[in-house]
Amino acid sequence: MRVLGIDCGSEFTGYGIVDSDGQAYKLVAAGVIRSSPQLPFCERLLHIASELERLIEAYSPESAAVEEVFFAVNAKSAIKLAHVRGVALLEAARAALPVSEYSALQVKLSVVGYGRAEKHQVQAMVTSILSLPEPPRSQDAADALAVAICHINMEFSRQRMARGAGGFH
Amino acid sequence: MRVLGIDCGSEFTGYGIVDSDGQAYKLVAAGVIRSSPQLPFCERLLHIASELERLIEAYSPESAAVEEVFFAVNAKSAIKLAHVRGVALLEAARAALPVSEYSALQVKLSVVGYGRAEKHQVQAMVTSILSLPEPPRSQDAADALAVAICHINMEFSRQRMARGAGGFH
Repeated sequence: MRVLGIDCGSEFTGYGIVDSDGQAYKLVAAGVIRSSPQLPFCERLLHIASELERLIEAYSPESAAVEEVFFAVNAKSAIKLAHVRGVALLEAARAALPVSEYSALQVKLSVVGYGRAEKHQVQAMVTSILSLPEPPRSQDAADALAVAICHINMEFSRQRMARGAGGFH
Repeated sequence: MRVLGIDCGSEFTGYGIVDSDGQAYKLVAAGVIRSSPQLPFCERLLHIASELERLIEAYSPESAAVEEVFFAVNAKSAIKLAHVRGVALLEAARAALPVSEYSALQVKLSVVGYGRAEKHQVQAMVTSILSLPEPPRSQDAADALAVAICHINMEFSRQRMARGAGGFH
């Protein structure tokens, strides 16, 4: 299973592509799409869309995972973020990738085992799960990898449950 | 000047294309892009994006105009709307259309002459300005035409001011 995790942001959009067979996890690619705040907002959206399109074409993920919008941030930032998220969801849909959405709580629970984990704990767990020689340089890339890992965990546990449930019929 | 006005919504996205020479206004096309709430949200965004792309290709507007996000609606609706808006801005940027954003107040002031105008007053003024035989059937289409007319008014008054200012140098 190859999953593209996306951590949307109007200035920095993290991405992380992870392969997994349900046992081991392998980093395929990770990084940040930077869109200059000097550019008009439309141009920034266009840049993010083009980069996501390029990544999807280059790495052919089978599905995508994104975090839900967190309402507690201020309304203006949440609205800006939602524009970027719309563009990310659109690019996934364009490439016919199924998209799953997870709350920050679900991601932290799944990756760290603790819903109120701090950012550096998420980063450390991502580093450990993917056996990286060092933590991802960017927090946004780490967050994108975390949502990809969360989706992998969820998918494999859904598959296991489906197989398990099948046994009772 | 040919302007595409867009009134974003996750279920109904109104559009209106207006031609003007600064004196008269002419309706080119107007309508609603409907995206079924039964569809997954990503699919809805894809449908809206494809329809906007088709409209831009069919009518070749020179610029686009959209309303700013109105924060007073509930946060969840504003966030949903912002996803659609991100997609609309992206499609405009893809087609290299300059996009202008106006507040609801600016649109009402420009079209009705009164910032707290009601929806039906906007609809009546749009009908009158475009010399339509009857009001647009959809409120979303009327709102899209209103933001297009607002942009036309703003652009021509900017041009007149620029010419006027030029006279003093």
